[in-house]
Amino acid sequence: MSLLVVGSLALDTIETPFGRAIKTLGGSATYISVSASYFIQPVRLVGVVGGDFPKEDIEFLKDKDIDLEGLQIIEDGKTFHWHGKYSFDLNNRDSIVTDLNVFADFDPIVPDSFKRSSYVCLGNISPELQKKVLLQIEKPKFVVADTMNFWIQNKNDELIDMLQLVDALIINDSEARELSHEANLIRAAKKIQGFGPKTLIIKKGEHGALLFTDNELFMAPAYPLESIYDPTGAGDSFAGGFIGHLAKTEDLSYENMKRAVIYGSSIASFTVEKFSLERIKDLTPIEIKGRFNEFKRFSEFTSI
Amino acid sequence: MSLLVVGSLALDTIETPFGRAIKTLGGSATYISVSASYFIQPVRLVGVVGGDFPKEDIEFLKDKDIDLEGLQIIEDGKTFHWHGKYSFDLNNRDSIVTDLNVFADFDPIVPDSFKRSSYVCLGNISPELQKKVLLQIEKPKFVVADTMNFWIQNKNDELIDMLQLVDALIINDSEARELSHEANLIRAAKKIQGFGPKTLIIKKGEHGALLFTDNELFMAPAYPLESIYDPTGAGDSFAGGFIGHLAKTEDLSYENMKRAVIYGSSIASFTVEKFSLERIKDLTPIEIKGRFNEFKRFSEFTSI
Repeated sequence: MSLLVVGSLALDTIETPFGRAIKTLGGSATYISVSASYFIQPVRLVGVVGGDFPKEDIEFLKDKDIDLEGLQIIEDGKTFHWHGKYSFDLNNRDSIVTDLNVFADFDPIVPDSFKRSSYVCLGNISPELQKKVLLQIEKPKFVVADTMNFWIQNKNDELIDMLQLVDALIINDSEARELSHEANLIRAAKKIQGFGPKTLIIKKGEHGALLFTDNELFMAPAYPLESIYDPTGAGDSFAGGFIGHLAKTEDLSYENMKRAVIYGSSIASFTVEKFSLERIKDLTPIEIKGRFNEFKRFSEFTSI
Repeated sequence: MSLLVVGSLALDTIETPFGRAIKTLGGSATYISVSASYFIQPVRLVGVVGGDFPKEDIEFLKDKDIDLEGLQIIEDGKTFHWHGKYSFDLNNRDSIVTDLNVFADFDPIVPDSFKRSSYVCLGNISPELQKKVLLQIEKPKFVVADTMNFWIQNKNDELIDMLQLVDALIINDSEARELSHEANLIRAAKKIQGFGPKTLIIKKGEHGALLFTDNELFMAPAYPLESIYDPTGAGDSFAGGFIGHLAKTEDLSYENMKRAVIYGSSIASFTVEKFSLERIKDLTPIEIKGRFNEFKRFSEFTSI
């Protein structure tokens, strides 16, 4: 079992109604690989940072047994920097600054030692780069991709092309509607599955997630949080927990995929409790399993 | 076991993107009592209609074994008429016409033979009238009330006063936020439970429902409908299925209340499939139990 993660590493400046974090660790590949590291080690990471990327963040990733052989460090460049500000209810965010920096020329090169990865998680990068990664991998067993409205709007053909190569797509509800031109999520899902991915996960934030497989539908609840401090990275954490559990168990059955959705939801529910990766940097197996069990307790019922 | 339902009977004119129905049977008490009739018979109804209320609607209600002793028929008055128009995505509706007619002077008088009803469902009428009904009932075992934003805004003190007398309140998510002045639904629920009702159900439309009891939380999924034709009456059908199952089983345990939420969701999911009461006028026990089982299948998962 081996898991490859490709995506961004970033320094995020985040403003929420509860406070602000300046140039703190972020990026899709960061959240995905740290979340997955609680299920499978090592996690193989492909990404790029600049010379300003803090040494202690490198050490942190290594401590999580994340294999950084595929991490390009451009010494005379600067790390991708995103500055976002969330609305009062955290449902909307404005991008104040998006400095792509070294990420603008990111060319994801998969090291030879990573080319036989059986599980692959493609974070939110351009669909052309996602495809380029996949063409370097020898027969992956299961490929998961994330995307976002920017690519749906600006690289639609490339995205549809890339989708033929993936087993699972993870997107949120508004992206699903935009990609399919269907308001109803059940119809939207059928259409998107027709583009290629047999498995589709639609995330609905505080309303949980929907898992669509060939013939089955699973409606996962959300964790009932009283306070959300920072939604950044929740979707990536979900993806990391999901693929991490699948890679660990090497079981792609529908029953196990449902568990993977709950593990993904569990990690995401921790992520939003604090800023950046603060809450998920030191999770314990007992905490994770405990939250999984809470999801079960909150959603199960019996027939008479 | 006996169930009393109080609320409106109406003739609705409904416009949706899929068509229009003119002066068709509607009203909260109608949806509640017809939905509950699939669980318990007879259902005792208290309401008011005008001389124009169609004879065949009276016959239909009688066929459902709804006891109309408490139905006031004002021969020289007109029945409450509501004309609503739904937006393209059915998420919003405008009230084009609201002719209260005989409903404006509704004085809910509970017949002597209804005064010892153990289960009571108060449809969406003014909180003063809801209280007036309750003061006529001898020691009800379980009282459920519905309300709406209009009463939250215009009769807030009366509503808070009435809430001290009910065991359960059923409202939707925006109403819960408005009533509690809390954006987060978990916090909102705690505050509303503090007003009186030990049990609270927050309906979230296509995202399911939340059931809060003393110490427990249940997150019920929604039914994955590909097409919704008319959302009118969904909330009332939910209430009817919920209270109907409780009255039938006479079991107020948390486990059984969860089942009642799923039965309510099941009836509501049928209601929206066609206009008015068209879909729920002839449900069979097999259809209802089948849908209950689908809710279970769509939401259950196992630990390893």
